[in-house]
Amino acid sequence: MREVFHRSLEDLQARLVEIADLVTVSIDKATHAFATSDVALAEEVIANDAKIDELAVTLDEQAIEILARQQPVARDLRIVVFALRVSASLERMGDMAEHIAQLARLRFPERAIPKGLKGTFTRMGELDVEISRTLSELLRTQDLRLADTIRNADDDVDELHASVFEKVLSDTWKGEAGATVDATLASRYHERFADHAVAIAKKVVYLATGDWAVEEEDIALAAEAQGSAAPEA
Amino acid sequence: MREVFHRSLEDLQARLVEIADLVTVSIDKATHAFATSDVALAEEVIANDAKIDELAVTLDEQAIEILARQQPVARDLRIVVFALRVSASLERMGDMAEHIAQLARLRFPERAIPKGLKGTFTRMGELDVEISRTLSELLRTQDLRLADTIRNADDDVDELHASVFEKVLSDTWKGEAGATVDATLASRYHERFADHAVAIAKKVVYLATGDWAVEEEDIALAAEAQGSAAPEA
Repeated sequence: MREVFHRSLEDLQARLVEIADLVTVSIDKATHAFATSDVALAEEVIANDAKIDELAVTLDEQAIEILARQQPVARDLRIVVFALRVSASLERMGDMAEHIAQLARLRFPERAIPKGLKGTFTRMGELDVEISRTLSELLRTQDLRLADTIRNADDDVDELHASVFEKVLSDTWKGEAGATVDATLASRYHERFADHAVAIAKKVVYLATGDWAVEEEDIALAAEAQGSAAPEA
Repeated sequence: MREVFHRSLEDLQARLVEIADLVTVSIDKATHAFATSDVALAEEVIANDAKIDELAVTLDEQAIEILARQQPVARDLRIVVFALRVSASLERMGDMAEHIAQLARLRFPERAIPKGLKGTFTRMGELDVEISRTLSELLRTQDLRLADTIRNADDDVDELHASVFEKVLSDTWKGEAGATVDATLASRYHERFADHAVAIAKKVVYLATGDWAVEEEDIALAAEAQGSAAPEA
C-alpha cells in the first residue's frame, strides 16, 4: 500500500512537471509572438492552452482519487493538496501566456509591442521564460535554491513592470490610447505570470521545510504589505 | 462520526458564506470609493483584505483537517475539495476589490474614474456588488437559480468591459495616458471579479447536480472558446 501510494505521488509530481514544461513552451512562444508579431506562433499558443487546461483537470482528478482511495494523512496529505493548488496556478500561468499571444494576434499585422517599450518587453519576456524553466526544474529536482532564482527574477520583472507605467505616464510618451492599453495589459500579464511562479515556488519550499502554516501567514502578510505600497497595476 | 462530519461540513459552508459576505462589503466600499474618490473608504477596503486572506487560510486548514481526520470519500470528499477551491476564488475576489480601492487611493484627490466613463464604471460596480451578494446567497441557500442570476449579470459586466475599450480606443477619447491606464486596469479588475464569481457558481451547480467532470470539461471548453474570440483584456 505504501509503495502504491508513493508511486501515485511520484506520478502526480511527474504530471506537474509535464504541465510546467508545457507552460514554458507557451510563454516562450507567446513572448516571441508578441515581440515579432508572429501570428502563427500566437495561434499555436492559443491552441496549446486547451491542452494545459486538460492536463490540469486530469491531475486534479488524480489527486482527488488518491485522497479517496488512499486517504493520506499528515505530510502525504499536504503533498496531494499541494498538487491541487499548484495545478491551479500553472493553469493560470498558461492563461497569462495565452493572453499575451492574444494581444499579438489582435494587433497583427501591426506590431504588438508599443514603440519605445521593445527593450523592456523583450527583457520581461526573457525573464518570464527563465522563471518558467526554473520552476519546472524546481518541481522536478526539489532543489530549493531554485526558489531564490525565481524570486530574484520576479523582482526584476516587478521593476520592469513599474518602468512600463513610468514610461507610459511620462511626458515623453507619444503612444496613442491603443498603445497605452496594450502596454498596460501586456505588462500586467507578464507580471502576473511571474507572481504565480513565485507563489508555487513558496509552496515547494514550505512543503519541503514542513513549515506550512508560516507560508500561509507569509502570503497574508505579503498581501497586506502590498496593500500599503503602490497599487498592483 | 457521521454527525461530527456533517457538522464539520456545515461549518465549512458557514465560513465560505462569511468570507463571501466580507467580499461583498469590500466590493461595495471599493466601488463607492472609486466613484467618489473617498480615500478613507478605500483605506478600509485595503485594511479589510488581510482579514479575508486570514479567513481563507483558516478555512483551508479546517478543510485539510477534515481530510486528515475524517477521510471523506465520494461526494463528501468533493465537498471538501470544493471548499478549498472556492476559498481561493473568494480570496482573489477580495484582491480585485482591493485593487480597485488602491486605484482610488492612488489618484486621490483627483477622481479615479476617467472622464466619460462615470456611468459605465458606476454600473459595473453595481453589477459586481449584486453578483457578490447573489453569490453569498447561493452559497448560503444552494438555490441554483441564483447561478443564472450571476451568469446574466456577468454577461452585462463583460459588455461594459468591452465598451470601456471601445470608448478608450475611439476618436472621441480625450483622456491622457494616465486615464487610459486607469480605465484599462479598473475595467479588468471589475471583469475578473465577476469571472471568479461565475467560476464559483458553476462549481456550486455541478456539486449539487453531481456532474463534476462535466464542469471541468465545460471550463476547459469555455477557455478554449474564449481563446478564439477577442483577447481577454
